[in-house]
Amino acid sequence: MNDCIFCKIVAGEIPSQKVYEDDYVYAFKDIQPQAKVHVLIIPKVHISSVNELEDSHKELIGHIFISAGKIAEILGVKESGYRIVNNCGKDGGQTVNHIHFHMFGGEPFGWPPF
Amino acid sequence: MNDCIFCKIVAGEIPSQKVYEDDYVYAFKDIQPQAKVHVLIIPKVHISSVNELEDSHKELIGHIFISAGKIAEILGVKESGYRIVNNCGKDGGQTVNHIHFHMFGGEPFGWPPF
Repeated sequence: MNDCIFCKIVAGEIPSQKVYEDDYVYAFKDIQPQAKVHVLIIPKVHISSVNELEDSHKELIGHIFISAGKIAEILGVKESGYRIVNNCGKDGGQTVNHIHFHMFGGEPFGWPPF
Repeated sequence: MNDCIFCKIVAGEIPSQKVYEDDYVYAFKDIQPQAKVHVLIIPKVHISSVNELEDSHKELIGHIFISAGKIAEILGVKESGYRIVNNCGKDGGQTVNHIHFHMFGGEPFGWPPF
Protein backbone atom coordinates (compact mmCIF):
# COMPACT_ATOMS: atom_id res chain seq x y z
CA MET A 1 0.00 0.00 0.00
CA ASN A 2 2.90 2.37 0.69
CA ASP A 3 4.02 1.83 -2.87
CA CYS A 4 0.57 2.32 -4.36
CA ILE A 5 0.70 5.07 -6.98
CA PHE A 6 -3.01 5.87 -6.53
CA CYS A 7 -2.66 6.16 -2.76
CA LYS A 8 0.17 8.63 -3.41
CA ILE A 9 -2.06 10.60 -5.80
CA VAL A 10 -4.80 10.77 -3.16
CA ALA A 11 -2.21 11.94 -0.62
CA GLY A 12 -0.94 14.61 -3.02
CA GLU A 13 2.52 13.03 -3.13
CA ILE A 14 2.17 12.53 -6.88
CA PRO A 15 0.52 15.36 -8.88
CA SER A 16 -2.72 14.76 -10.76
CA GLN A 17 -5.35 16.76 -12.63
CA LYS A 18 -8.21 16.58 -10.15
CA VAL A 19 -11.75 16.79 -11.47
CA TYR A 20 -13.68 15.83 -8.31
CA GLU A 21 -13.03 15.04 -4.67
CA ASP A 22 -15.05 14.39 -1.55
CA ASP A 23 -14.40 12.58 1.72
CA TYR A 24 -14.40 9.14 0.10
CA VAL A 25 -13.66 9.54 -3.60
CA TYR A 26 -10.97 11.14 -5.76
CA ALA A 27 -11.25 11.57 -9.54
CA PHE A 28 -8.54 12.74 -11.91
CA LYS A 29 -7.66 12.79 -15.59
CA ASP A 30 -5.97 9.67 -16.95
CA ILE A 31 -2.39 10.50 -17.98
CA GLN A 32 -2.88 8.39 -21.10
CA PRO A 33 -6.32 9.56 -22.22
CA GLN A 34 -8.11 7.27 -24.67
CA ALA A 35 -11.07 9.57 -25.37
CA LYS A 36 -12.00 13.26 -25.23
CA VAL A 37 -13.09 12.65 -21.64
CA HIS A 38 -11.13 10.01 -19.72
CA VAL A 39 -11.19 10.19 -15.95
CA LEU A 40 -10.24 7.72 -13.25
CA ILE A 41 -12.53 7.51 -10.23
CA ILE A 42 -11.02 5.86 -7.17
CA PRO A 43 -11.87 5.38 -3.51
CA LYS A 44 -9.46 7.14 -1.16
CA VAL A 45 -9.09 3.97 0.86
CA HIS A 46 -6.88 1.28 -0.63
CA ILE A 47 -8.76 -1.72 -2.03
CA SER A 48 -6.88 -3.83 -4.56
CA SER A 49 -9.69 -4.85 -6.90
CA VAL A 50 -13.30 -6.03 -7.13
CA ASN A 51 -12.07 -9.44 -5.93
CA GLU A 52 -11.08 -7.90 -2.58
CA LEU A 53 -14.39 -6.10 -1.94
CA GLU A 54 -16.08 -6.90 1.36
CA ASP A 55 -19.64 -6.25 2.48
CA SER A 56 -18.41 -3.21 4.40
CA HIS A 57 -17.43 -1.58 1.08
CA LYS A 58 -20.90 -1.68 -0.45
CA GLU A 59 -21.85 1.89 0.37
CA LEU A 60 -18.45 3.13 -0.81
CA ILE A 61 -18.84 1.48 -4.22
CA GLY A 62 -22.34 2.88 -4.51
CA HIS A 63 -20.96 6.27 -3.59
CA ILE A 64 -18.46 6.00 -6.44
CA PHE A 65 -21.31 5.54 -8.92
CA ILE A 66 -23.29 8.44 -7.43
CA SER A 67 -20.10 10.47 -7.82
CA ALA A 68 -19.78 9.28 -11.42
CA GLY A 69 -23.07 11.01 -12.24
CA LYS A 70 -21.80 14.21 -10.61
CA ILE A 71 -18.50 13.99 -12.47
CA ALA A 72 -20.33 13.43 -15.76
CA GLU A 73 -22.26 16.63 -15.09
CA ILE A 74 -19.07 18.54 -14.23
CA LEU A 75 -17.47 17.35 -17.46
CA GLY A 76 -20.55 18.06 -19.59
CA VAL A 77 -21.25 14.47 -20.64
CA LYS A 78 -24.16 13.54 -18.39
CA GLU A 79 -26.76 13.92 -21.13
CA SER A 80 -24.61 12.79 -24.08
CA GLY A 81 -23.59 9.64 -22.22
CA TYR A 82 -20.50 7.85 -21.03
CA ARG A 83 -18.93 4.46 -20.37
CA ILE A 84 -17.59 3.25 -17.02
CA VAL A 85 -15.05 0.43 -17.05
CA ASN A 86 -13.46 -1.55 -14.23
CA ASN A 87 -10.62 -3.92 -14.99
CA CYS A 88 -9.98 -6.72 -12.51
CA GLY A 89 -6.87 -8.86 -12.68
CA LYS A 90 -4.71 -9.87 -15.61
CA ASP A 91 -7.32 -10.73 -18.26
CA GLY A 92 -9.23 -7.57 -17.42
CA GLY A 93 -6.13 -5.52 -18.07
CA GLN A 94 -5.76 -4.10 -14.56
CA THR A 95 -2.40 -2.29 -14.33
CA VAL A 96 -2.68 -0.55 -10.93
CA ASN A 97 -3.75 -2.64 -7.96
CA HIS A 98 -5.96 0.04 -6.40
CA ILE A 99 -9.55 -0.42 -7.53
CA HIS A 100 -10.45 2.23 -10.12
CA PHE A 101 -13.23 3.04 -12.52
CA HIS A 102 -12.46 4.55 -15.91
CA MET A 103 -15.04 7.03 -17.18
CA PHE A 104 -15.04 7.74 -20.90
CA GLY A 105 -17.13 10.38 -22.64
CA GLY A 106 -17.28 13.13 -25.22
CA GLU A 107 -17.74 10.83 -28.21
CA PRO A 108 -19.74 7.72 -29.13
CA PHE A 109 -18.09 4.40 -28.21
CA GLY A 110 -18.14 1.14 -30.15
CA TRP A 111 -18.86 -2.41 -29.10
CA PRO A 112 -17.40 -4.73 -27.85
CA PRO A 113 -15.42 -2.87 -25.20
CA PHE A 114 -11.97 -4.29 -26.04
CA MET B 1 -41.13 -0.09 -16.72
CA ASN B 2 -43.84 -2.47 -17.88
CA ASP B 3 -42.16 -2.60 -21.26
CA CYS B 4 -38.67 -3.09 -19.81
CA ILE B 5 -37.13 -6.26 -21.26
CA PHE B 6 -34.84 -6.71 -18.24
CA CYS B 7 -37.73 -6.36 -15.79
CA LYS B 8 -39.48 -9.10 -17.78
CA ILE B 9 -36.37 -11.29 -17.58
CA VAL B 10 -36.25 -10.80 -13.79
CA ALA B 11 -39.95 -11.71 -13.60
CA GLY B 12 -39.40 -14.82 -15.71
CA GLU B 13 -41.68 -13.55 -18.45
CA ILE B 14 -38.79 -13.67 -20.92
CA PRO B 15 -36.45 -16.67 -20.70
CA SER B 16 -32.77 -16.19 -19.86
CA GLN B 17 -29.72 -18.28 -19.01
CA LYS B 18 -29.37 -17.48 -15.33
CA VAL B 19 -25.92 -17.66 -13.74
CA TYR B 20 -26.67 -16.03 -10.38
CA GLU B 21 -29.59 -14.69 -8.42
CA ASP B 22 -30.27 -13.35 -4.95
CA ASP B 23 -32.89 -11.06 -3.41
CA TYR B 24 -31.50 -7.96 -5.13
CA VAL B 25 -29.50 -9.06 -8.17
CA TYR B 26 -30.04 -11.17 -11.27
CA ALA B 27 -27.25 -12.24 -13.64
CA PHE B 28 -27.64 -13.99 -16.98
CA LYS B 29 -25.72 -14.73 -20.16
CA ASP B 30 -25.78 -12.01 -22.82
CA ILE B 31 -27.69 -13.26 -25.87
CA GLN B 32 -25.03 -11.69 -28.10
CA PRO B 33 -21.86 -12.79 -26.29
CA GLN B 34 -18.73 -10.84 -27.18
CA ALA B 35 -16.29 -13.00 -25.21
CA LYS B 36 -15.97 -16.53 -23.81
CA VAL B 37 -17.63 -15.24 -20.66
CA HIS B 38 -20.17 -12.46 -21.12
CA VAL B 39 -22.77 -11.99 -18.42
CA LEU B 40 -25.15 -9.17 -17.62
CA ILE B 41 -25.58 -8.27 -13.94
CA ILE B 42 -28.67 -6.22 -13.13
CA PRO B 43 -30.57 -5.07 -10.06
CA LYS B 44 -34.04 -6.56 -9.78
CA VAL B 45 -35.49 -3.12 -9.19
CA HIS B 46 -35.85 -0.89 -12.21
CA ILE B 47 -33.31 1.94 -12.40
CA SER B 48 -32.76 3.45 -15.85
CA SER B 49 -29.05 4.26 -15.71
CA VAL B 50 -26.22 5.63 -13.57
CA ASN B 51 -27.70 9.09 -14.18
CA GLU B 52 -30.83 8.08 -12.25
CA LEU B 53 -29.03 6.66 -9.20
CA GLU B 54 -30.03 8.13 -5.85
CA ASP B 55 -28.31 7.93 -2.49
CA SER B 56 -30.75 5.19 -1.48
CA HIS B 57 -29.26 2.96 -4.20
CA LYS B 58 -25.69 3.03 -2.89
CA GLU B 59 -25.85 -0.27 -1.03
CA LEU B 60 -27.55 -1.92 -4.02
CA ILE B 61 -24.78 -0.87 -6.41
CA GLY B 62 -22.17 -2.05 -3.94
CA HIS B 63 -24.04 -5.33 -3.68
CA ILE B 64 -23.85 -5.72 -7.45
CA PHE B 65 -20.06 -5.49 -7.28
CA ILE B 66 -19.86 -7.94 -4.37
CA SER B 67 -22.02 -10.23 -6.50
CA ALA B 68 -19.67 -9.71 -9.45
CA GLY B 69 -16.87 -11.31 -7.45
CA LYS B 70 -19.12 -14.28 -6.62
CA ILE B 71 -20.18 -14.60 -10.26
CA ALA B 72 -16.55 -14.49 -11.40
CA GLU B 73 -15.87 -17.37 -9.02
CA ILE B 74 -18.88 -19.34 -10.30
CA LEU B 75 -17.70 -18.84 -13.89
CA GLY B 76 -14.07 -19.69 -13.12
CA VAL B 77 -12.59 -16.28 -14.00
CA LYS B 78 -11.99 -14.79 -10.56
CA GLU B 79 -8.25 -15.45 -10.63
CA SER B 80 -7.68 -14.99 -14.37
CA GLY B 81 -9.49 -11.66 -14.30
CA TYR B 82 -12.40 -9.90 -15.93
CA ARG B 83 -13.74 -6.57 -17.15
CA ILE B 84 -16.93 -4.90 -15.92
CA VAL B 85 -18.56 -2.31 -18.20
CA ASN B 86 -21.49 0.01 -17.67
CA ASN B 87 -22.85 2.01 -20.58
CA CYS B 88 -24.82 5.14 -19.76
CA GLY B 89 -26.77 7.00 -22.41
CA LYS B 90 -26.24 7.34 -26.13
CA ASP B 91 -22.47 7.90 -26.31
CA GLY B 92 -21.90 5.07 -23.86
CA GLY B 93 -23.84 2.73 -26.12
CA GLN B 94 -26.63 1.91 -23.67
CA THR B 95 -29.31 -0.05 -25.52
CA VAL B 96 -31.59 -1.16 -22.66
CA ASN B 97 -32.74 1.48 -20.19
CA HIS B 98 -32.42 -0.75 -17.11
CA ILE B 99 -29.03 -0.23 -15.48
CA HIS B 100 -26.78 -3.21 -16.23
CA PHE B 101 -23.18 -4.23 -15.84
CA HIS B 102 -21.48 -6.35 -18.49
CA MET B 103 -18.93 -8.82 -17.15
CA PHE B 104 -16.39 -10.17 -19.64
CA GLY B 105 -13.88 -12.93 -18.95
CA GLY B 106 -12.18 -16.06 -20.17
CA GLU B 107 -9.62 -14.26 -22.36
CA PRO B 108 -7.32 -11.21 -22.16
CA PHE B 109 -8.90 -7.92 -23.22
CA GLY B 110 -7.29 -5.05 -25.11
CA TRP B 111 -7.27 -1.33 -24.48
CA PRO B 112 -9.03 1.05 -25.01
CA PRO B 113 -12.42 -0.47 -24.21
CA PHE B 114 -14.19 0.55 -27.42
